[in-house]
Parts: sequence; C-alpha cells; structure tokens
Amino acid sequence: MPRLLIKNAKALVGAFAPGMQRVAGADMAQLPIIADGWMLVEEGRIAALGPMSDFPGIADWSNLTVIDASGRYVLPGWCDPHTHTVFAAPREEEFVDKIKGLSYQEIAARGGGILNSAAKLRAMDEDELFQRSKARLEAMMAQGTVAVEIKSGYGLSLESELKMLRVAKRLAAELPLQVKTTLLAAHAMPAEFKDDRAAYLDLICEQLIPQVAAEQLADFVDVFCETNYFTVAEMERVLASGAAHGLPGKVHVNQFTSIGGIQAAITHGALSVDHLEVMSDSDLNALAACRLADLPIPTLLPSCSFFLRIPYAPARALIDKGLPVALASDHNPGSTPSGNLNLVLSLACIQLRMLPEEAITALTLNAAAAMQLQDQLGSLTVGKRASFIITRESPSLAYLPYAFGTDQIDTVIIDGKPFRSGAALR
Amino acid sequence: MPRLLIKNAKALVGAFAPGMQRVAGADMAQLPIIADGWMLVEEGRIAALGPMSDFPGIADWSNLTVIDASGRYVLPGWCDPHTHTVFAAPREEEFVDKIKGLSYQEIAARGGGILNSAAKLRAMDEDELFQRSKARLEAMMAQGTVAVEIKSGYGLSLESELKMLRVAKRLAAELPLQVKTTLLAAHAMPAEFKDDRAAYLDLICEQLIPQVAAEQLADFVDVFCETNYFTVAEMERVLASGAAHGLPGKVHVNQFTSIGGIQAAITHGALSVDHLEVMSDSDLNALAACRLADLPIPTLLPSCSFFLRIPYAPARALIDKGLPVALASDHNPGSTPSGNLNLVLSLACIQLRMLPEEAITALTLNAAAAMQLQDQLGSLTVGKRASFIITRESPSLAYLPYAFGTDQIDTVIIDGKPFRSGAALR
Repeated sequence: MPRLLIKNAKALVGAFAPGMQRVAGADMAQLPIIADGWMLVEEGRIAALGPMSDFPGIADWSNLTVIDASGRYVLPGWCDPHTHTVFAAPREEEFVDKIKGLSYQEIAARGGGILNSAAKLRAMDEDELFQRSKARLEAMMAQGTVAVEIKSGYGLSLESELKMLRVAKRLAAELPLQVKTTLLAAHAMPAEFKDDRAAYLDLICEQLIPQVAAEQLADFVDVFCETNYFTVAEMERVLASGAAHGLPGKVHVNQFTSIGGIQAAITHGALSVDHLEVMSDSDLNALAACRLADLPIPTLLPSCSFFLRIPYAPARALIDKGLPVALASDHNPGSTPSGNLNLVLSLACIQLRMLPEEAITALTLNAAAAMQLQDQLGSLTVGKRASFIITRESPSLAYLPYAFGTDQIDTVIIDGKPFRSGAALR
Repeated sequence: MPRLLIKNAKALVGAFAPGMQRVAGADMAQLPIIADGWMLVEEGRIAALGPMSDFPGIADWSNLTVIDASGRYVLPGWCDPHTHTVFAAPREEEFVDKIKGLSYQEIAARGGGILNSAAKLRAMDEDELFQRSKARLEAMMAQGTVAVEIKSGYGLSLESELKMLRVAKRLAAELPLQVKTTLLAAHAMPAEFKDDRAAYLDLICEQLIPQVAAEQLADFVDVFCETNYFTVAEMERVLASGAAHGLPGKVHVNQFTSIGGIQAAITHGALSVDHLEVMSDSDLNALAACRLADLPIPTLLPSCSFFLRIPYAPARALIDKGLPVALASDHNPGSTPSGNLNLVLSLACIQLRMLPEEAITALTLNAAAAMQLQDQLGSLTVGKRASFIITRESPSLAYLPYAFGTDQIDTVIIDGKPFRSGAALR
C-alpha cells in the first residue's frame, strides 16, 4: 500500500490528542492546530505528524508519495452523522409546491412528504436504489465527507426497511467511506397502519429490531418524535426495544414542536438528539444537566432550516451550556436535498453564529462521536484512519466558511488513498 | 473556428424570440423551452436551433464537434449584473467579528468595511490586483457565469479608481466572458474628505466622470445611496453628471433604509436599482409606475441578504407589480464573499419564493438587460453569443435550484468555446 508524506502544510487542523472522545462548550473554540506541519500516512492510517521544525526526516523512502501542501490546510475529513441518503428519487415537485405557498405539513397531508418517498422506494428494485445512492455518496465524498450515517425510514414495511438497510450495507462494502446505519422505521406512520398505530409499533419492536440486530443490519435506532408523527411514548417503546438489542438511539426531536422528546431520549440513554430547532428553556436545561455525562450529543442540521425556512437551532445557547455540539447534513429528498458539508460549515458560522473552529470541531470529532466513530475518525491523530481534506491555497481557516458556496477543497484522501485528486497531488 | 452541434438536449431553456429585451411580471414564469432540442454554433454564435423532430440535418460536417446532450438541459450562461469582484483581499477577519456580534455598521465604524478594502487596494500593485481578480472570475466562469458587471469603489481616489477600472478592462480583454464596468467612486466617503464631502463629489463629477468617459473606462455610474453613506441629493448629482457624459446609472438603494433613492433613480433614468431589501409601499408603487417604461430594472442580491442576515428583497411583490426582476451575486469581500450564481438561483427559489422559471429568467435575459447586454446574451436565440451551460443529467429544471449547494453544471461554453469541459464533451 502506498505511503504518503504531507509536507509544509499551512496547518494541520484538529490534531487532537489520542483518546479524545468529544469536545464540549468553550473548548470547542480551542481547535488544536499545528502550523507548518507534516504528516506521514502508512497502511491507510496516520503514522506520525508534527511541525516541520521537528520533522525527523524519513528513513525509508520506498513507495512514498510526497505532497507539498504549502499554503494549504489539512483537515480531518467531514463526518456526517445524520442522513437519509438512501432514497429512490428527489422530490423537487414538492419544492415547487412549497414556493407556491404550501407548508411541509400541507404537502404531507396531500400524500407528499415521507410517504411519497416511501411509495417510490417500495417500487424500486434494490440494485437501482443502490446505484442512485452510490452516486450521491460519491458526490458527498468529493466534497470531503469520509463517514456517513444512513437511516432507513422510506420503507415503512418489514421488507422495504430491510431493503434500505441492505443497500446501506452494500454501500459500506463497496465505497471507501465509513458507513453507520440506523433503523428509522418510525419515520412516518404507513397508511396501512394509520388506524392501528400499536400494530406498527409491534412490527418495529417485535420483528424489525430483533431481525436487524440479529443480522447486524443497523447500528442504531431512530424515531421521528414530533406532533403528527410519533409520540414520546411511542419513541420510548422503540428506544427501549433498541437498547434491549444493543442498538442505541439517535432521535429526531424538537424540529417543529417541543413535546418532551429530549427528556425521554436522555432517560433512555440516546447517543444523540438531532434537529433541536424549537427548544424551550426546559429542553436546554435538561441537556445542560447531562453535560458531564457522555450523552446525548446535540446534533444540528442547519441545511434543513435553510431549505424549510424554519428557525435555526440555538447553537450558541447549547455551547454556552457546555455541550458538545455536532453538525450533520440531514441529506434527504424532502427537507434537505443537499449533502454538501462545506455549505453546512458556512451555515453554521453565518446562521448559527458558530466560530469557524467550533464548526470544524462539530463537523469532525463531535460528528464522529455522534456515530461512535471517534476512535477511528474525526481528528488528525496517530492511529486514526488517514481520511482527510487538503484545501486549496487559503488565506486563513476562517476563509473556508466565509467563502460560502465556493469549492475550497483541493484533494480528498480516504483511508490513505486519493478519492479526489487536485493540484496538491500533481 | 470549430463548429458545435448540440443534439438530443433534454430541453433548450430560454429560447426567447429575437429582439426580446426583458421579461416582466407574470411573463417571467413563461420561460420558452424547446424539449428534445438541437442547437448549431458557428463562429462563436448561435446559428440555428429547434426541436429534434424538426432537425433539418447538417450539410457541412467539416470541423464540427457533436455533443449528445441526452438527459441534460442547455441554458443560457448566467449573467451577473452587479459585482465588486475586483478587490485586493478577502475580509474574513471581519466575518469572525460579525459572528462575535458586531454589526456591519459597527465594523465600518472601527475602520473595517469598505474603507478597509480601499486601504488594501490602494497598497496593491495593478498586476497583483489583476491576477487575483482573474482567479475569481475564472472560478465564476466555471460555475456558468458568461458576463459580469464590475464596479470600482475600493479606490476612492482619482488614481485608485482609475486603477480598478483599468484592471477590469484588462480582465475584459484577457478573459472570454463579457465585462461591463461601472464607476462607483461614491461607495464610501474617503477619510481625507470626511470634513468636506462636497470636494469629493467635485472630484467624482468634475474629474473622474469626464476622464472615465473620455477614456471609455466605464459603461455606467453607481452610488451607494444609504444612511451614513451618500445622500439622495449626492446621488442625484452623480447621476446627472454621469448622464451628461453618456453613463447611465446603476445604483445601490434601499439596502438598510428607505430614504427616497428609488424615486430619484427613476427621475434620472437609471438603468437598474439594486439591493431593495428594505422597501416601503411608496417605493414599490414608484417602481410599479415605471412598469411600462424600459427602466429601471430591479436587481436583487439574495446572497448578500444570506450572508448579512438582513431581510430578503420582496421579489414576489415586485413580480406581482409587473416588473422585470433581475438577480446578481453582489460578489464582494465584505457582504457577499461568493460569486456562485447557482447558489443565487437556489436562494432566489428558497428564500425569495421565485419559481425556477422566474429565477432563470432573472439570471439570464433580465440580468443581461440590467447591463445592456440583452442583444448579445441572456437567451438561446439565433445570432446571440454561443455562451451557455450544459447541465449534468437532471430529472427536471426545478432540480437545479432544489439541489442547493451541489454542482449541477457539466460544461460551460463561452463564445462557442469550451471553458469547462464535462462528460457531455467526452
């Protein structure tokens, strides 16, 4: 396997100490940065790194590619801990309906929304679903994404939920990025169960979760806990069943309304609470009370707020409460048809008022932690996977979010191999 | 010169009839589209086009490149009628100050803002300024921009304003895109004139405008008519002087406050009124009263609203009043560090609630009209410059703004020559 030596990097960003699990509160602004750095990659892992002033030299030059990264930043690859990127088809016709004035809820009431995606997904064969999802993930990797969580939730039946998770597992096997999968059967109530909600919950908890756990098709369970979707009590039942089968929760809460989902997720030891656009003081305080515990990680999705024109999550309040904020794309065909985490970086700084260092921490180490990948990814640390971004020449780190909507990535390396090759490699 | 034949395009978009000058009001949603189309390019111009069902065949196949555009849209290249893209350096340090809570006005009061850019520009030699601006325009062309208006306004002295305009003219000469230039000496009051505003107006009207007109360095004049910048009366003096020297006005009005700039711009026959984030009923009615005249064209800059988190311009009200709305990037280092018009397309649909067809019209024919290029660019029309975009394979036209922050452009042709070559050309 080829070895790589990065030399003269303007800075190695996110050079956290080994064992660092996540970063919370005011520490998020203290991103460890090694100016004028070098990094050695061997066997797909980070073998060594440091400042050029301490560069020890290389004894063995065999099979070594040297990259002069002068003027360029080297960053851990982006981790995306909340996506729905396995789906059958985009839904831009609903986007046009929204422009004409219909609300997300009105579109759902007309048979659009999640149930529209479910109908399309059920009708699509597994290979076609794989190919379309693969193309989306390739575009995301080209934008620096090196790990992704993928949810089911457009199947809404035993067979179709399993189909989605099998596709996600095949993506994990065939693509270089790391993939974690989440069973989100409780994404919307399928029409065939609308008069017997308990029966659908039975299907999820008594059939799907045991089978998914037995076949190792999912790492986590999720519930869309929201007015008109699933109640707090229903979420609790799914979380309890998931926990009994070794599947921690990563849950959709407080997107449109505050109904107690956060408190229940905490009680059930959820790994992350995602969305958080609508937060009461009591919601914030409940999370703040967990700040010394490991869990849950508040995971914010500013691209969803941008596209739906709903409030942005209160990132500053969460950081001020000492919490370890993570960011994700929420890539999905209804509310977030974009998987570009560079735009999420800009949205985090422009709209959530996060400092560039905070937003980078939230998209790397904390995002990795929100899918239990922090020991493998999320920082430039010896022993971790060599999955990283080399930027174009850039005047400063703050320039990356500032120059929104422009492509500042030159090269993407995943597990030590170039996935996207720019000028730095030539 | 090579000839090009595009065949099997999913659609030719914006195939306006010859002579069409701009599109107003409800007509903006009626974008002329030829499904399953072909287009012939000769001598850098559009020579013929139509539906494949009427394809007459090609008699002369010499020197002809054939592009199969199956599944792809062909669109007129984007026109950008409001930019400040000649500048010395980005100002991301002010961006970080903004995140920390300072307002645009507070940053200006600390010596940041436009005067910061002016200090950097005055200190930079002309060739360095050219090289940096050229790199920015190349990135914009790769995103589909085929014409750009460039303003001065970071010189704020006779010598430095002329330097900026000379750089813009050199860009026009060395790059394939069309460039129009605007004298914006009245962008901010230079410190050396702050106690004698009239003397700076004298310099603009009695020295700069005559010299710029005589040397053909600018096509238009502009004024930042705004509280704490230039008064309506000062703008009127510049517009009158510009008109006397054959330079129509394109003016910054109603960005933060409504102080009567629109009404004065109308009186002075301005070509466009730009920004319009803060509009009173009387401002809207004044524009509506001009809807049967040619002028002015309301030019909206949603990327600026996005980055500054100020209100978005009332695009729907302007269209409902029967006006010909145009869109532009406002690319500049302070309020809009992005020249990507594909993101402007998304912002126009998501935030301004424009239909995809309306937004495309606003970024093509109406944008060309807002810089007097409508006879050369802005539509797929026989005789116009062959400057166009071929998209990636796309399920629909609405998909382009919907998939925000993702790159949907495959190939960019400028004056019949590939500037960016994608899969369609291979």
